[in-house]
Amino acid sequence: MSRLDSAIRRLQAQRACLDHAAEAIAALAGPVLELGLGNGRTYDHLRGRLPGREIFVFEREVAAHPDCVPPALHLILGDFAETLPEVGARFAASVSLAHADVGSGDPAASRRSAGLVARFVPPMLRPGGLLLCELDLEVPELERLPMPEGVAPERYFYYRKPSA
Amino acid sequence: MSRLDSAIRRLQAQRACLDHAAEAIAALAGPVLELGLGNGRTYDHLRGRLPGREIFVFEREVAAHPDCVPPALHLILGDFAETLPEVGARFAASVSLAHADVGSGDPAASRRSAGLVARFVPPMLRPGGLLLCELDLEVPELERLPMPEGVAPERYFYYRKPSA
Repeated sequence: MSRLDSAIRRLQAQRACLDHAAEAIAALAGPVLELGLGNGRTYDHLRGRLPGREIFVFEREVAAHPDCVPPALHLILGDFAETLPEVGARFAASVSLAHADVGSGDPAASRRSAGLVARFVPPMLRPGGLLLCELDLEVPELERLPMPEGVAPERYFYYRKPSA
Repeated sequence: MSRLDSAIRRLQAQRACLDHAAEAIAALAGPVLELGLGNGRTYDHLRGRLPGREIFVFEREVAAHPDCVPPALHLILGDFAETLPEVGARFAASVSLAHADVGSGDPAASRRSAGLVARFVPPMLRPGGLLLCELDLEVPELERLPMPEGVAPERYFYYRKPSA
């Protein structure tokens, strides 16, 4: 499999997971968190799939296509280590979906981001709320869901906060 | 269509064109030119599809995955405006396939690169040789080929040097 094949599979898996999650939370109120904006592709996809839903985007520094930059009120700028603890009370047990695309070329930085997501995101999810991440997370308070059909395991990781 | 959808379609079109071209030149001798290395995805794909074929890569500055960096003898570093004229005699009428992925976020720079490709690449193609580019080129000495099945027109442009 070439790197071109691999890039296509990765983006297809990402889209299948986002589509699945968007449908799964259709009847679940609560804002969506996009952790990591990057070039804005997945944010653009989520806002198209979830019209009217509030989507809050967390990013260190915006480098997205100009038409994929969220409105200022929904953009939370800064290092996850500072912003995630700050918004804990505001979003406590209210979030319907968090999508964390926080990996980077730097494995140490990716692990650090994954650790912050695992620590601060679960308390913000409402019961039944979903967490999608391209990295495996240590989140014992969440249940691991199977991947949507057609998505290879280990390409994405999919968690839910128990409803009870 | 979201930017995620669009990225998937663009990469799928790129792969379909490269696969088609690799098969089309199977019986045509001559080196391949990869104009623009980028992250190395399409170079990786081409070398997988064309084992044993010499592939020369032109790039201003290497920023690819380390395992997608061509060997030094097959890497021609510098601005296309300098390197393409320099290699004209070396490759004259010998190249079986040139793939030019030279677009960038800067439209003026993309047009300039497309102009250099249109001027310097056709004389390097052997009769029957192919030129694939994601930009439309003014190359009156080449014939425009239809896109491979499943690839939308205007996603890629496909040219051949007449055999006669």
